[in-house]
Amino acid sequence: MYIIGIDLGGTNIAVGLCDESLKIKDKISAPTGAGRAPELIVKDMASLAKKLIDRNGITKKDIAYVGIAAPGTVDPARGVIEYSNNIRMKDFPIADVFRKYMTGTPVFLENDANAAALGEALVGSGAGSDSLIMITLGTGVGGGIVIDGRIFSGSVNTAGGELGHTVICVGGRQCTCGRRGCFEAYASASALAAMTKEKMHELEIKGIDSLLFEEEKAEGRISARTAFGAAKRGDKYGQELVDSYVRYLAEGVTNVVNAFQPKILSIGGGVSAEGDNLIKPLEELVLREQYTRNSKKKTKITVATLGNDAGIIGAAALGRSLD
Amino acid sequence: MYIIGIDLGGTNIAVGLCDESLKIKDKISAPTGAGRAPELIVKDMASLAKKLIDRNGITKKDIAYVGIAAPGTVDPARGVIEYSNNIRMKDFPIADVFRKYMTGTPVFLENDANAAALGEALVGSGAGSDSLIMITLGTGVGGGIVIDGRIFSGSVNTAGGELGHTVICVGGRQCTCGRRGCFEAYASASALAAMTKEKMHELEIKGIDSLLFEEEKAEGRISARTAFGAAKRGDKYGQELVDSYVRYLAEGVTNVVNAFQPKILSIGGGVSAEGDNLIKPLEELVLREQYTRNSKKKTKITVATLGNDAGIIGAAALGRSLD
Repeated sequence: MYIIGIDLGGTNIAVGLCDESLKIKDKISAPTGAGRAPELIVKDMASLAKKLIDRNGITKKDIAYVGIAAPGTVDPARGVIEYSNNIRMKDFPIADVFRKYMTGTPVFLENDANAAALGEALVGSGAGSDSLIMITLGTGVGGGIVIDGRIFSGSVNTAGGELGHTVICVGGRQCTCGRRGCFEAYASASALAAMTKEKMHELEIKGIDSLLFEEEKAEGRISARTAFGAAKRGDKYGQELVDSYVRYLAEGVTNVVNAFQPKILSIGGGVSAEGDNLIKPLEELVLREQYTRNSKKKTKITVATLGNDAGIIGAAALGRSLD
Repeated sequence: MYIIGIDLGGTNIAVGLCDESLKIKDKISAPTGAGRAPELIVKDMASLAKKLIDRNGITKKDIAYVGIAAPGTVDPARGVIEYSNNIRMKDFPIADVFRKYMTGTPVFLENDANAAALGEALVGSGAGSDSLIMITLGTGVGGGIVIDGRIFSGSVNTAGGELGHTVICVGGRQCTCGRRGCFEAYASASALAAMTKEKMHELEIKGIDSLLFEEEKAEGRISARTAFGAAKRGDKYGQELVDSYVRYLAEGVTNVVNAFQPKILSIGGGVSAEGDNLIKPLEELVLREQYTRNSKKKTKITVATLGNDAGIIGAAALGRSLD
């Protein structure tokens, strides 16, 4: 049997055909076209799935189930996207609508950060661990929580695990969620880019040169990579930015460790591509700051390994958590 | 059948005889004498339990189980207090030692904040809810988490739920745990007393009078009650202190709501005696700040109802969670 995992993103729909060990056999993608009628988006999801099935010489009967990972607040029990700003859906019964294209095949839905965490726990950096928290450092800071082998997203509604929207600096930087000082406003890729821009503006005014400007030219823009790139080349200001970024990140990660004590804390998203340059100093700070610093049993901090496939594999893992 | 619940605190050992609905039928207490050999403390716990059994005309055979709630890091599975600063125990197999006095009776052990949360969930402010987080505002800020009707204290070790030791102000006030800016350093009763003291010192220097000084005289010291007392009587500076305190408290509580989405968030500890003067403005801020402010499903914020008996009842509830 095979599994279809669908990563429904704000920009692209990525559909993967996975085997039972959650390995991607084949994948395909198309632009989401967010803002269109949700039914049209589901139609595209279904035809991408059909293409995959056809070109791999199998039939719908070979598909054990379909998993959909979507951004925003979703209700997995009802298969409804309650609210998603990215793909502009509100109270949309996406699982039911998709089922029309694949009658008889179970369809599971989850929030994308939660699905990615489950994927990491089952076949990624968690390597079969039943306890993993994934923190995704991208445009925002996403949180996905796996406890006892199952996704934990809160009891009162499924918007739990919003670890990016926990304040680490009361009255601090404005966050998109309306609060000030959120973890996301300091530890996202966008936050690092914004802080880099501020620093470069300051250097420009003072007439100080830095490799940050070369990095900007090379990439054509200021991004989260700018500071890391300059730091790697020995630039003082780049290193200061990286150090400050890692300190904020460590504060938020330590909060998560103190509150949840997961076995694995997996760092994903664009910034995680920095690998050891990020993880080594982060690990050192979190080890030093955590409440259980004197205990032998500690959370393992690691880089997420599923990368861009985390959405597809996480979606494909959804039926697995319900076994 | 009856249950013995033991609240082993840094100052007192409180032992209660509870019926099967977790109502306290009789209770007794004695000083802990922390610092003595742990075996002597357990001996006292056992003789207090025996006294209760004898004076209620029952026998050891009428006791279904014994629950012990202790401060610090405990391992419920092994019945071991791994480390407790308050009662000065380290790697002490308290359940095994206690069992010698009541052979054949099951003995359960839990961290006191966790046990109190379970008690609140079962028979306190949670009223049978399977999802409750209790935040205790006392000398420190304690956290107890009940998910799916069971205590959640982390996977890697049982020191999870340290919600007081999550930073809300990076680089802020020094916390006893070694970090700076912890929730506890702003929202504990001790923190409010410290901030009140600072304010009064400032007023004194400036020669400004305030009812804060009258409140101090009446109580004989500056405590968390000083600011609330002056505010109730219309004092401007008392009100400013209370407003600032509630704002910090709301930031930490909103963090907990965003991360956990519990059905009930119960506020306990000394400061919770302020009742509506605390809860009403807190609720308003948390409603406004939370990620799911537009959702119909929201965490209910309430005052814990078990008060000083939370430890005994929480301890007596321990066998219940394992049913």
